[in-house]
Amino acid sequence: MGKIKTIGVLTSGGDAPGMNAAIRAVTRAGICNGFNIKGIYRGFDGLINDEVKPFTTENVSGIIMQGGTILKTARSKEFMTPEGRQKAYETLVKEEIDALVVIGGNGSLTGARDFASEFDFCCIGLPGTIDNDLYGTDSTIGYDTTMNTIVECVDRIRDTAQSHERIFFVEVMGRDAGFLAQNSAIASGAEAAIIPEDSTDVDQLARFMERGIRKSKKSCIVIVSESPKCGALYYAERVRNEFPNYDVRVSILGHLQRGGRPSAHDRILASRTGVGAIEAIMQGQRNVMIGVRNNEVVYVPFSDAIRTDKPLDMKLIKVLDELSI
Amino acid sequence: MGKIKTIGVLTSGGDAPGMNAAIRAVTRAGICNGFNIKGIYRGFDGLINDEVKPFTTENVSGIIMQGGTILKTARSKEFMTPEGRQKAYETLVKEEIDALVVIGGNGSLTGARDFASEFDFCCIGLPGTIDNDLYGTDSTIGYDTTMNTIVECVDRIRDTAQSHERIFFVEVMGRDAGFLAQNSAIASGAEAAIIPEDSTDVDQLARFMERGIRKSKKSCIVIVSESPKCGALYYAERVRNEFPNYDVRVSILGHLQRGGRPSAHDRILASRTGVGAIEAIMQGQRNVMIGVRNNEVVYVPFSDAIRTDKPLDMKLIKVLDELSI
Amino acid sequence: MGKIKTIGVLTSGGDAPGMNAAIRAVTRAGICNGFNIKGIYRGFDGLINDEVKPFTTENVSGIIMQGGTILKTARSKEFMTPEGRQKAYETLVKEEIDALVVIGGNGSLTGARDFASEFDFCCIGLPGTIDNDLYGTDSTIGYDTTMNTIVECVDRIRDTAQSHERIFFVEVMGRDAGFLAQNSAIASGAEAAIIPEDSTDVDQLARFMERGIRKSKKSCIVIVSESPKCGALYYAERVRNEFPNYDVRVSILGHLQRGGRPSAHDRILASRTGVGAIEAIMQGQRNVMIGVRNNEVVYVPFSDAIRTDKPLDMKLIKVLDELSI
Amino acid sequence: MGKIKTIGVLTSGGDAPGMNAAIRAVTRAGICNGFNIKGIYRGFDGLINDEVKPFTTENVSGIIMQGGTILKTARSKEFMTPEGRQKAYETLVKEEIDALVVIGGNGSLTGARDFASEFDFCCIGLPGTIDNDLYGTDSTIGYDTTMNTIVECVDRIRDTAQSHERIFFVEVMGRDAGFLAQNSAIASGAEAAIIPEDSTDVDQLARFMERGIRKSKKSCIVIVSESPKCGALYYAERVRNEFPNYDVRVSILGHLQRGGRPSAHDRILASRTGVGAIEAIMQGQRNVMIGVRNNEVVYVPFSDAIRTDKPLDMKLIKVLDELSI
Repeated sequence: MGKIKTIGVLTSGGDAPGMNAAIRAVTRAGICNGFNIKGIYRGFDGLINDEVKPFTTENVSGIIMQGGTILKTARSKEFMTPEGRQKAYETLVKEEIDALVVIGGNGSLTGARDFASEFDFCCIGLPGTIDNDLYGTDSTIGYDTTMNTIVECVDRIRDTAQSHERIFFVEVMGRDAGFLAQNSAIASGAEAAIIPEDSTDVDQLARFMERGIRKSKKSCIVIVSESPKCGALYYAERVRNEFPNYDVRVSILGHLQRGGRPSAHDRILASRTGVGAIEAIMQGQRNVMIGVRNNEVVYVPFSDAIRTDKPLDMKLIKVLDELSI
Repeated sequence: MGKIKTIGVLTSGGDAPGMNAAIRAVTRAGICNGFNIKGIYRGFDGLINDEVKPFTTENVSGIIMQGGTILKTARSKEFMTPEGRQKAYETLVKEEIDALVVIGGNGSLTGARDFASEFDFCCIGLPGTIDNDLYGTDSTIGYDTTMNTIVECVDRIRDTAQSHERIFFVEVMGRDAGFLAQNSAIASGAEAAIIPEDSTDVDQLARFMERGIRKSKKSCIVIVSESPKCGALYYAERVRNEFPNYDVRVSILGHLQRGGRPSAHDRILASRTGVGAIEAIMQGQRNVMIGVRNNEVVYVPFSDAIRTDKPLDMKLIKVLDELSI
Repeated sequence: MGKIKTIGVLTSGGDAPGMNAAIRAVTRAGICNGFNIKGIYRGFDGLINDEVKPFTTENVSGIIMQGGTILKTARSKEFMTPEGRQKAYETLVKEEIDALVVIGGNGSLTGARDFASEFDFCCIGLPGTIDNDLYGTDSTIGYDTTMNTIVECVDRIRDTAQSHERIFFVEVMGRDAGFLAQNSAIASGAEAAIIPEDSTDVDQLARFMERGIRKSKKSCIVIVSESPKCGALYYAERVRNEFPNYDVRVSILGHLQRGGRPSAHDRILASRTGVGAIEAIMQGQRNVMIGVRNNEVVYVPFSDAIRTDKPLDMKLIKVLDELSI
Repeated sequence: MGKIKTIGVLTSGGDAPGMNAAIRAVTRAGICNGFNIKGIYRGFDGLINDEVKPFTTENVSGIIMQGGTILKTARSKEFMTPEGRQKAYETLVKEEIDALVVIGGNGSLTGARDFASEFDFCCIGLPGTIDNDLYGTDSTIGYDTTMNTIVECVDRIRDTAQSHERIFFVEVMGRDAGFLAQNSAIASGAEAAIIPEDSTDVDQLARFMERGIRKSKKSCIVIVSESPKCGALYYAERVRNEFPNYDVRVSILGHLQRGGRPSAHDRILASRTGVGAIEAIMQGQRNVMIGVRNNEVVYVPFSDAIRTDKPLDMKLIKVLDELSI
């Protein structure tokens, strides 16, 4: 492994607000410290297909406040095959890229880890996902913005819920993690959250409806984590069957949760971790994700970052229960 | 018909942002001009069930910026029966209410018109609906706010559409009227709108896809007016079948379109028409809807306001076509 | 005057949200109808200095939601001289521009009018100003967005005013016109507005303070139109002297009123008038401003548009007075 | 000291978004755990003057999304005197309040500490201030919202700065702490921040202007921390004198930084610390501030919380420097 001169940067997986701020930070901190920067388009697919472009500071001008990613993104099936990864490696050689910064979530960093060990290549990860399901960083780039978007939507839905005295089941994203559901329920003053982690309680709905009825509130909001089988539609249907007196509605927030101007928090997180990625490379780090914990930039080995058990703080359930009385 | 001393105010039908500003305006302008004001809860149902409360200026303090309606709202089935309307009339007599201000959309003003003629009662309407489907006013209370909400959501969705190079079908409200779909498509820079009024064109989708393919844009947004049969899901399914190369997604904005802080425009419209309702009563008007046309407060007879053919300006289709090239 | 083949477009004067949407509309509708489009940078200065660039549809892609103007803008002193205008004309000849679309406010359209008559050149105006002080159009591009920005700011300030029980004097823009002040006062539920047009009332402040004290509200908001001598600071000082019991604060909103994502209303207005400019040129119109009145696109001769007496509806003062009780 | 039955809650000092969410959390968690809750109006002044009201869960219904504080707030001069504090104590005795939750910033918690030790009274603090200048908690209630507000304002101002190619000096709050200035500069992509902590560098402006000129950017934004002598007006004047070629403007954001709907982050922080205050009381804690560090609720002794040297991370200056190239 020689001296690193050129750094490639790509975004991968679902887009998250703040990815552009991260691209900007990697590019500018890289150039500022003497590296060449190359932008790789369409995630690992673009690496396979050699969609690579040299970046200057101007390429990332005026993007800090934009949602989405100017590098485009994708979930690459080909990169999951040895042939795909071989092609990707050949692009890196051809483009003389010595290190790769991957901005993405759990799946993308898993891909980066595998690629890094397979080809002994320097990969640095940035936690870019709205799901907050990466271990070792207090939050992920995009999570805070998405939280604000959800809360703003629920504030709007509450106007209608109260005016019509209805129960709303609002479905939010989060994949297998309940961070978005649990915390947006607290932040929006929802009456309950139904989350994947709470598996000990066989019937979260029944528990809530009992409490809800006891309180005799006439309108309420339940936040439901997305789920193939037990999403908002499922619970709404159950309430319609079991409690026919209630006027029940469903709102599935869907893709609007991903976009939008990033919050101040996410822009700063993206800026600090982007600068941190360049520093890590300069310090000879490799195969780590850059995170922020307790207001400090930290390096988290890939295998720690992507472990599946980032725990949801169960005390938050108590917070929600006490505050929705 | 004696002198009017007490005015009742209610909201009816789907809630719309700005209804609270209208309640405030009716209440304060009424009190300011020497009337007693009584708030009637839950629309015509509350009139039937005597859910009535005297209002002072304090009752409407701090509500101008709130979405929804502090008076609650409902779609009353009982009011559609002669018995229901009789009970409603008895409440008015009992509560000594001499005139009624109804804030609502097409269905609510139709109810007000029928009630007014049946009992020779002074009813004044305010155009409170996000659908903009009332004739005689440049816009309805709530329409502008909902337009801004939709456009904000589509701006967010576009971030994802562009980052992933997808086609999004975004479904918006509007009942039988395409105002929201057509105009939000123009305002959000969408590539097409599919609206109920455009019935001459048997296949709006095919027309758009041809143009879209010709342009070879890789991502695009199509706004679809809600419809039981031909909503966003229907068109997405068709594209998936007929153009399998595209990555197609659906977003149904749903109830979040109704709520939220009203825009400046809607607060002013609500304030002016609310003051106008009191003026109309003082001038002996009855059975008119208060609107604003060309920046002037106007009185629109109920039968004109609720006629079903408020036309969508077909020139707007040309605007959208020319600007989405 | 031969057939028009190439159209130049520029923005001039203070920037206004929606200017980009207007540039996009002129460009795309122009190209769609067979014209060449050239963008002129930095207003009339850029015309004098030949800062001109051919525009394609891509040049205006993704700008509909951006505040400011990608063409930059300036207030040109040189264009006020005959020599400056001569140079500007020479640029047009050299660049083979046959018609000019000027997006700007009162001063810019006055310049366009003078230039058009001096050189017998086809100029079309679009009403781009936050001040709403152009005659013949229901509103100007940028006015609605600025109204929403002001109202959002005042909503925030009210939180503090109520929490601390203070009087706030909030100064807003508007040049010599009170549209922004008067209407934002209504929309924000302010207790009073002090506007330049209300010259009959020698002492708007005293009138308000009497009413305010009578009502014994403990916090209140007064919107003040900007003015070299009698701005918010002036009135705050007077209250401090004359009513020392009150806790008085000032907030001068300043330049943040100009920027930001344009509202749905302004994007549509910009789109319709931009398309209208191209239609007007095709119909042989010249020296008109394109406006929208009563939901219809209209052509307003420059001299009408810039006349100084666009009246503020004095009934609005009554609306504010009645609703702030 | 007997068993605690009744808990009083008050807000003090400058208002901050999220204070209402904190009042709600203290009230509901208190009631949920068997305490009586009493709301004290107008901060320590209200304690002195016995402005106290029993609170039920309904008193705090619908306030989680509201800026400001329903309990009002003030900076009490009388509470700084022994006589004032004695009266305050007498109110507590009379109202049978056994513990006091004080929501406020540095000054308010200093007052609480002194009062607690003087009368051996159980006081618990919540960090309610936009300034983020309390030690022991990752952030204070209100700071995140204010950061978002500032960044939104600067995004708007940038539209104008770029359109007109100007230098803007934007002054933000923060008292003696540069958190808001430094971090909002990073988040808004500003070219520089001028902060009180950076005292080693005698001339932050000169350093920036050199770099700025070297980069030959035509527009730029400098965030300036509020300061009696060296605020935005001071630096703008200097640039006008020393670099007369630049078009310089000033924007003082002022009080609008305080209000507005709290962000998701601040609502959660307020909810968790509010619940934490009740838990602390139940555990026999006293004279501690409840904070959140590294996603965990922590108890911080008052004397630690209010020590004056909460350090600004000087690495952030490097982040800003590298990213503004």
